[in-house]
Amino acid sequence: MTYVAVAGPGDAPPAVCAVAEEVGALLARRGAIVVCGGLGGVMAAACRGAAAHGGTTVGLLPGDTRAGANPHLTVALPTGLGQLRNGLVVAAADALIAVGGNWGTLSEVALAARAGKPVAAVGGWTVSGPDGPVDAAVTRCATAAEAVAAVLP
Amino acid sequence: MTYVAVAGPGDAPPAVCAVAEEVGALLARRGAIVVCGGLGGVMAAACRGAAAHGGTTVGLLPGDTRAGANPHLTVALPTGLGQLRNGLVVAAADALIAVGGNWGTLSEVALAARAGKPVAAVGGWTVSGPDGPVDAAVTRCATAAEAVAAVLP
Amino acid sequence: MTYVAVAGPGDAPPAVCAVAEEVGALLARRGAIVVCGGLGGVMAAACRGAAAHGGTTVGLLPGDTRAGANPHLTVALPTGLGQLRNGLVVAAADALIAVGGNWGTLSEVALAARAGKPVAAVGGWTVSGPDGPVDAAVTRCATAAEAVAAVLP
Amino acid sequence: MTYVAVAGPGDAPPAVCAVAEEVGALLARRGAIVVCGGLGGVMAAACRGAAAHGGTTVGLLPGDTRAGANPHLTVALPTGLGQLRNGLVVAAADALIAVGGNWGTLSEVALAARAGKPVAAVGGWTVSGPDGPVDAAVTRCATAAEAVAAVLP
Repeated sequence: MTYVAVAGPGDAPPAVCAVAEEVGALLARRGAIVVCGGLGGVMAAACRGAAAHGGTTVGLLPGDTRAGANPHLTVALPTGLGQLRNGLVVAAADALIAVGGNWGTLSEVALAARAGKPVAAVGGWTVSGPDGPVDAAVTRCATAAEAVAAVLP
Repeated sequence: MTYVAVAGPGDAPPAVCAVAEEVGALLARRGAIVVCGGLGGVMAAACRGAAAHGGTTVGLLPGDTRAGANPHLTVALPTGLGQLRNGLVVAAADALIAVGGNWGTLSEVALAARAGKPVAAVGGWTVSGPDGPVDAAVTRCATAAEAVAAVLP
Repeated sequence: MTYVAVAGPGDAPPAVCAVAEEVGALLARRGAIVVCGGLGGVMAAACRGAAAHGGTTVGLLPGDTRAGANPHLTVALPTGLGQLRNGLVVAAADALIAVGGNWGTLSEVALAARAGKPVAAVGGWTVSGPDGPVDAAVTRCATAAEAVAAVLP
Repeated sequence: MTYVAVAGPGDAPPAVCAVAEEVGALLARRGAIVVCGGLGGVMAAACRGAAAHGGTTVGLLPGDTRAGANPHLTVALPTGLGQLRNGLVVAAADALIAVGGNWGTLSEVALAARAGKPVAAVGGWTVSGPDGPVDAAVTRCATAAEAVAAVLP
């Protein structure tokens, strides 16, 4: 069984959520379990896509309760860790797909790349070093299908 | 949906594991999700009991990988937290049932009692204060059925 | 340099705090750094004792801010982990002294014993297994001096 | 008392470490406590600079022991959290200065920006969104003095 984290803003616009929903659907069809931060936006969309295809979804929530958990989670787990739960999302998964970007999403991309896990990104933010883009660790993708193929070869 | 943590030694004797398996089975039949540390002994037995009755089981593993995860987990989540993941097991659940005892189990009992969550114990260790047993927070039970009834009224 | 965690209730009575203050003082005189949860009661008393003797004190606070930190801390570190920071107090120290008891204190005693670190307790709670007290891992002490001697031989 | 995290690679080249050492020195002269991941490279250099000016330095180590701790730490705290301790470094500090860059450093920059804490960076990596650089949350600086001034106005 492969676990893939889907990271992205909790308040993403519809076009970004549509990509996330397709990512979730494709992951479920490939038999992968979706792991996320459990809230709305990209997280909810990915879970909705996975659940619609019979997939299993795991939400690692920042608070002490399940308040704010999206309704598409197979299991919704409060962590009480606040933003430190971003690291837990990465630790729990074998690979990460980022859809859209904000600082929280970037923290997950960075921790996954740091851990040497496969990372794919659709849209979102790019990172550059002194000598140009830092591309080796993140596969930039144009579509949900490309991103899923990149982390589930 | 109610989440119940089942805590106990990873190397418990058969009689203790039999109780844990019955706890898991009863939780599944009541529709509760089993949360545990994901390893063997009491954890594996509770998951085996739940899985045999179609229940959902969550393992929060101490390491960075799924090594040692028992085969009855619906989702197996590496945390990389070591023994700090005991606190995560408690945070993720609404109540806790301890079966048998060791220091790791006691840490989960203590954290759950500290958080004001319902705690039931079958066998295992007892705690006394200067004025006698500290009983208010832990329901001592003789059987799996009593323990499940205590936390799922 | 040796780090010793001092654990105990945040609202302990004066007699218990007096023991904690002496523990802190003795640790400082032995050159050990005091680690604690950073709040009041036993934690504040141990830090006050250590600070009065030129000792270094570290508080690992449960919240996102330094609100509630006692005024005797050399360094006050918000963790944002809530009660999970109890495990961090244990991880950061080489040994643990419990003064008085409650469920939070017991979680620290259990995690330290689980990790195989020296644990001493003055007053507080006792733990029994099916065959009697579980004594091997915790040195029961009558005085602050005994407790410090037990963990700093 | 203000706490400033200094983040950067554990194996940075001499020119980067020289900037980190100056950051540490300036922070100590301003009376700020340096918080870091406790290891070598940028972390060791910042601590060396702070210690040389009588500053206090805190290292939050990834492992269960103090192995690899740099020799300039006032307090060296094992966390057992692995790379999740990056989030703890951010939680413990009021602001963050990044010197040089890698994925671990970027995770700290992202978590600090996410938490709304002041972030300054000397060298290192830059982040761009679909509409250009994401600059509001990170002050790009050419020198150690600029970075310290940016977070300690």
